[in-house]
Amino acid sequence: MAVVLPFESPHPASLDRLAELVAPDMERVNAAILARTGSQVTMIPEVANHLISSGGKRLRPMLTLAMAKLSGYGGDGHIRLAAAVEFMHTATLLHDDVVDESDMRRGKLAARMLWGNEASVLVGDFLLGQAFKMMVEVGNLHALEILSAAAAVIAEGEVMQIGAAKNTATNEDEYLAVIRAKTAELFAAACEVGPALAAREKAEQAACRSFGMNLGVAFQLIDDALDYGGKSAKLGKNVGDDFREGKITLPVVLSFRRGNASEREFWNRTLSQGDVRDDDLDTAIALMAKHHAIEDTVGRARHYGAIANDALALVPPSEIKTALEEAVAFCIGRAH
Amino acid sequence: MAVVLPFESPHPASLDRLAELVAPDMERVNAAILARTGSQVTMIPEVANHLISSGGKRLRPMLTLAMAKLSGYGGDGHIRLAAAVEFMHTATLLHDDVVDESDMRRGKLAARMLWGNEASVLVGDFLLGQAFKMMVEVGNLHALEILSAAAAVIAEGEVMQIGAAKNTATNEDEYLAVIRAKTAELFAAACEVGPALAAREKAEQAACRSFGMNLGVAFQLIDDALDYGGKSAKLGKNVGDDFREGKITLPVVLSFRRGNASEREFWNRTLSQGDVRDDDLDTAIALMAKHHAIEDTVGRARHYGAIANDALALVPPSEIKTALEEAVAFCIGRAH
Repeated sequence: MAVVLPFESPHPASLDRLAELVAPDMERVNAAILARTGSQVTMIPEVANHLISSGGKRLRPMLTLAMAKLSGYGGDGHIRLAAAVEFMHTATLLHDDVVDESDMRRGKLAARMLWGNEASVLVGDFLLGQAFKMMVEVGNLHALEILSAAAAVIAEGEVMQIGAAKNTATNEDEYLAVIRAKTAELFAAACEVGPALAAREKAEQAACRSFGMNLGVAFQLIDDALDYGGKSAKLGKNVGDDFREGKITLPVVLSFRRGNASEREFWNRTLSQGDVRDDDLDTAIALMAKHHAIEDTVGRARHYGAIANDALALVPPSEIKTALEEAVAFCIGRAH
Repeated sequence: MAVVLPFESPHPASLDRLAELVAPDMERVNAAILARTGSQVTMIPEVANHLISSGGKRLRPMLTLAMAKLSGYGGDGHIRLAAAVEFMHTATLLHDDVVDESDMRRGKLAARMLWGNEASVLVGDFLLGQAFKMMVEVGNLHALEILSAAAAVIAEGEVMQIGAAKNTATNEDEYLAVIRAKTAELFAAACEVGPALAAREKAEQAACRSFGMNLGVAFQLIDDALDYGGKSAKLGKNVGDDFREGKITLPVVLSFRRGNASEREFWNRTLSQGDVRDDDLDTAIALMAKHHAIEDTVGRARHYGAIANDALALVPPSEIKTALEEAVAFCIGRAH
């Protein structure tokens, strides 16, 4: 799925440099995460660590650490805020799997398949509670404001998504509003708390937030494209998961709107009515190819990636800045 | 300034077809406009008609008429709503010229240069009042809701713009929020009232709104690009007006952020401090070329133009749909 687009990023598409630069801090974040999933209720660490230790990239806490570094922050608060960000993310994954009735997550059985829906919901709540506790401990009101506002927006996004679910009439703006809330807002908040901790001026905080927001939108767009064509190993889920769950993502929005009446009947049958037959996924992928839906989804992602990079353009050159630009290229490059 | 970008629109870049299709309705709109600028206070028709008869494209009322047609609306309400939309637009132009201290508008002296600031402000208010009166006469609560909400958002956008004015630290997201409010919202509302009048289902109203919103963003981006390189005849204002007024538009945002320290000093001196010398506009244009700022602004506009077209993709092929797609191509093609 090589898509030729202009304004190619001059940066290698890799998270390695970012991971390396924040490695010492990330060790402390991991220790905090481990400590905070501890509980007398043995099911809590079991469920939590099943997901937490399943090899996620820890992209969001990495962003918090990187932005704190970029902002010249000298304190300790970024460790707990990064752990809180990862907990918020893990909590939404646990809850999402219940809402979506997913079987797999990151190449393993979803927690709800092993411990049930109730445990997944409640351990998610426990992690959210722990996240808030850590934020409060850091004692920075501004950072607390940013992350608690994000928690509300994310929940709102999930509800919005239920409203849009299986509705093939969803348009691109509505889809964008959902992914801004459910995915990009946490990226934005994760990036914004770094300069907030360091009490950098408002414009710098806004720049970091903008970087995160646009990276988050690009990230989700690529995720949605990969679901119809990427290698499942990369995502830890299978091609077609979104399709089988009736999720209305941009590749579907574009294919549905660009298609003819019989194609729209196909999308309505499979996604709205959930009547999916053996060859339907192949048909869906063929229709997306016909209408350049994957290619244009990746193109849209590049647009947001470019805005993310421009948001940080003011920051003087540094290794950490280069690492962040490479992270943008990585998020978009996953589509190849 | 030919910029090579992929996903070229397959449609000729022209407003002709749109203008032709709505011509009979537009004659009635023009009659309504003329009737409603009448007043015993002779200054009111003088000031209003100075601007209204100065050869604007009437793009916004055209959109209202076109969307009513597209929605199969059979009544009369779209005429007065289209006139109301044009009055709202004219009112903001009158007020903008006062706020920006502009001398020229559409190739003529700005109204405030002939009748003064007070008259421009008050005639703007008069037109807004007339716009509301016409909306109420139409008696469709939903359309009234859409347009009155837009009036509030537009005013909010103007205030936001004052906040961002001369502030070179403005980032792309902040700039986008301003142009969404001050420009794109009226395009969105103008498009949404057509299907609202026709009581089309929600998804169709949302599609028309999305078309208008994204077209409006694209339109403003191209306007901002043209201000640094277009032919002044096309815009009816001179190249460099935004620069002389210290307006922070996307070409500036990108050039400032991508520039080095001495370049940023240049932008701060000219735009923030308003110390503009003889060759500064040339320097500004050269810096924009160096950083591909105009090219990338046009590229961003194409992104929104593509979303606008996809918003309408569901609509069955028709002459009016083709005309709307050509209008998108026209708005973007102005940059060539």
